[in-house]
Order: sequence, then structure tokens, then C-alpha cells
Amino acid sequence: MKVAFVGLGVMGYPMAGHLQKAGHDVTVYNRTSARAAAWVDTYAGTHAATPKEAAQGAEMVFVCVGNDDDVRSVVLGEQGVLAGLSKGSIIVDHTTASAHLAVELAAASKTQGVGFLDAPVSGGQAGAENGVLTIMVGGEANDFDRAAPVMAAFGRTVKHMGESGNGQKTKMVNQLFIAGLIQSLSEGIRFAQKSGLDVNEVIDVIKGGAAQSWQLENRGPTMVQGKFDFGFAIDWMRKDLGICFEEADRIGAETPVARLVDQFYAELQAQGHNRDDTSSLIRRL
Amino acid sequence: MKVAFVGLGVMGYPMAGHLQKAGHDVTVYNRTSARAAAWVDTYAGTHAATPKEAAQGAEMVFVCVGNDDDVRSVVLGEQGVLAGLSKGSIIVDHTTASAHLAVELAAASKTQGVGFLDAPVSGGQAGAENGVLTIMVGGEANDFDRAAPVMAAFGRTVKHMGESGNGQKTKMVNQLFIAGLIQSLSEGIRFAQKSGLDVNEVIDVIKGGAAQSWQLENRGPTMVQGKFDFGFAIDWMRKDLGICFEEADRIGAETPVARLVDQFYAELQAQGHNRDDTSSLIRRL
Repeated sequence: MKVAFVGLGVMGYPMAGHLQKAGHDVTVYNRTSARAAAWVDTYAGTHAATPKEAAQGAEMVFVCVGNDDDVRSVVLGEQGVLAGLSKGSIIVDHTTASAHLAVELAAASKTQGVGFLDAPVSGGQAGAENGVLTIMVGGEANDFDRAAPVMAAFGRTVKHMGESGNGQKTKMVNQLFIAGLIQSLSEGIRFAQKSGLDVNEVIDVIKGGAAQSWQLENRGPTMVQGKFDFGFAIDWMRKDLGICFEEADRIGAETPVARLVDQFYAELQAQGHNRDDTSSLIRRL
Repeated sequence: MKVAFVGLGVMGYPMAGHLQKAGHDVTVYNRTSARAAAWVDTYAGTHAATPKEAAQGAEMVFVCVGNDDDVRSVVLGEQGVLAGLSKGSIIVDHTTASAHLAVELAAASKTQGVGFLDAPVSGGQAGAENGVLTIMVGGEANDFDRAAPVMAAFGRTVKHMGESGNGQKTKMVNQLFIAGLIQSLSEGIRFAQKSGLDVNEVIDVIKGGAAQSWQLENRGPTMVQGKFDFGFAIDWMRKDLGICFEEADRIGAETPVARLVDQFYAELQAQGHNRDDTSSLIRRL
């Protein structure tokens, strides 16, 4: 299938690569064109000068950029994806962005006969590189049914969550779950260290019980070591939580611990730790 | 082996039963003697009138009572376990209690040539009934080596964490990990419900990724249903957190989210929800 990929960041770069390796004919666009050129060197495929040019002739366009403004620009801009797409094509937005943006862009796309899916991912850089992302998708079922087999190139779990915006809302729930979980791991691990316990032994015994979590098993030992370079940076988490709190205010959902943890992240940002991963909350303790 | 079990609560009752079924000769003591009589009706074994009487002739005495004062009373009291035990025997305390109590009782036991292990458990009522508890043990290695095969009757993971008090400290870490985790699940699940998402579908997709946890998989769906009768009550969690905060103050460990969650539990207690399980934090939201 002829497809395009817009945004070759730490996630998009390997995701686009998986599409090419799966046999698709991929045209890429990236704001920093040197990175797009490097991608073409690695995977073959084609390098376009604008999102519009990348989209021309494509059946599906995948987007994975920074935030709401970036998505709006690469989709709706004069040189944006919609300007290049033909009727019957589909835009799949893998950016973590707001649910209302998804609704807005789905409506704008529909007026041109183009489908739009909000499809944020979880699994991080490693998940993108290994092609085992979890993808939470909002939008029309027939668009999902066409796009899901293509997303399978880089997704292990690809799930339709309902109408436009529901992919984003599901991702927000994911981030709410993680925020307090990591803070609790931080409090427990620091307590264990100050108690003189062998923390790796503590993690080993606890992870078999009711306190078990992916974060405990995977980030617990690296938090003990003080290593915080596992990809998902504080800057990005705060962006996601900001989107989440905006939606929470709209629907009247209380998120006291997530908001407290967000303030802890803000402190770490102010100390210059903004590119450390989310498990670096333990630094504060 | 001739053993005794003191405290036939929701945990102790099935734990003592597993010892009897494993072929040990078990004498039980319980403050409410009708419950001890019921236990003897179910499992055979013997019913003693006091902890001292239960301990007489026993090689090991297992204790599982309410709090520090209860443990001190059944171990050190005039009619307590130590008054009945012979040199070379071992007391295994499965109560979640303070680390300094464990140190105190280990010292008192030692003067009589008796071993003392602090051995709090996790896994809840179901873990006790199915004999698959996690047991975190502090105390001398030779005592642990003798007691571990006996504890295997009701423990799937039985681990020596080092000196006296370290079992209790490890359990505290477990409770710190869980406190914020459950609050985050509450915030995320309530957000999902207010967003109009199908929350069971949300849990299903998220549990494959970085937000996965035992609590999400096991308590998530029951929180969605509003069922809060899964054994580990708010009253008990607050007791455990109280012990934990006392230790945290002593060692200078910060636990801001656990303390916030403890206040949320206090609110629920004040509303009469004190016997609901810990996942009922979602009620507040």
C-alpha cells in the first residue's frame, strides 16, 4: 500500500521503518529534513518536502508529532496532509493529543471524504523499535477496520475504543494510572533504602504479590540504580498530564494525586531534569 | 511437628488449617474461644485456654493477631507464649506490626533461648485460604531455615530479608507501593467512566502495557462494578500505614502520596466505610 508517515521522532522513526519492512511503499516527511534523509538511507522509501507532498497519492497517512498545535499544522496547514489527500484515504494520528482536537480533525477530514483516527500509543521507544506498541484508537469502525492491519506492522495490541477522541481519552487513563504508581514506587524504594533493606531483594519478594506492576518489575531495579534514561521524559509526561487535566476539568473528574505528581515533575523540570524519564520522581525523595 | 497457632482471624484461621493439613500437630488459641472451638471441629487439632498453654511442648508457635499491643500481650503476657515455650523453640509472628516491636520481642525471646521471626504476609484472605501467601521474614538465619519449610504449608514465597524487623520493613514498602497505586487506579477509572468510555475495554487494552499492575487486573474490574468486599479493609490498611509513617519519621523518609491517601481513607472511615476494602478509594471521586 502507498502510505505516508509524518514525524520521525524517537517513536515515528522506527514505526515508519516497520511499515516499510512490512512491504508498504512509504513516503516520509519530517520537520528536520536531515532526519528524513537518514531514514530514507536506512529503509529506502521516499522523502517529501511537505506533509502535503507526502500525502499525495497515499491511501493512509500516519502522523506522530509533538502536540495539538503540531498536529493541527501538519493536518490542516496550507502544506498539510489534508491538502494532498484524495477522497477515501485515512489519516491515523499517533500523537498523544487532546480528545477535542481529534473530534475537530475528524470533522474537518470528513468534509473531504477522508477518515481520521486518533491512535495514541503506549509502550515507549522500545515498543516502537520492537513493533509491539499498544494502540488505542478512536474513530469510525470502517476506518479502523481498514487501518488496523496496517498498524499491526508496529502494534501488538490495536484496539478500537469507539468514537473520535476515545483513543486519546484511553491514553489519558493510562497516564493517570501511571502517575501515582511511579510516585508510590519512589516512596517505597526510598523508604527501603533508608531502612537499610536490600532493595533488590525487597522488589523480588514484593513483585509476586498484590503490589506487582510492570513499573515495579521494569523500572524498580533501575530506580534503585539511579538510572533515568528510559525514554519517556518528564517533559512529555507533563504535556500528556496537561491534556488530561484539561479534559478532567471539562468532565468534572477529580485527579488529586496525578496533580500532585505533576507538581513534583514540575520541580524536577525546574532543576533541569526535564529529559530524565518519569521514574526519576525518586530524585525528589 | 508439634506447633501452636495464636490468632484465628480471617488470615490465621486458614493458615492454621494448612499446618494441620500438612501433618503437623496443631494447638490453637483464639481470644474468642468459640472460633477456636469451630476451628477444632473443622480441622481436628487441640484448643488451648491461653497462649501459654498452647505454647507448652510446641516446637514453633505462629502468631497472627491485630496490632503491636496484641502481639506484645500474647508473647510477653503472664499467660503469654514465652511463658510456655521451651529453649530451642521459635516464635513466628505473622502480624503486620512495627519493626521496633520485632527487635524488642526478638531480644526478649533470646534471653529464654527462643528464636523470634517477624514474618508479615501479603496475599490477603484468598492467599491465606489457598496457601499461597508471600511471607517476608526478619530474624536469625538459622531460625529462618528451620521455620521456612513449615511456613511453606501456607506460603508460596517465603523469603529471608535479614535481621529482626526487616520482615516488617519489607511489608511497609509493600503497603507504600499499593497506597498510591490504588488511588491512581481510582482517578483513572472514574475519569474513564465520566468520559463515557467502556471502562472494561479500557482496562483490557491498558493492562498489556506500562500501566499494568496486579491491582489493575484484579481490582480494576471490581472497582468498575462498585464491589468493595475483597477482604483487606480500610481499618487494617490505616493501621499498616500508621506503623509505616512512624518508621518513615524515624528514618527521615518522605511519603507524601501515601499520607494523602491515608487521609482519603480516614474520610471513608468517617463515613462508615471502614470495613470496605482498600479499592474503595474510588468512592471519594
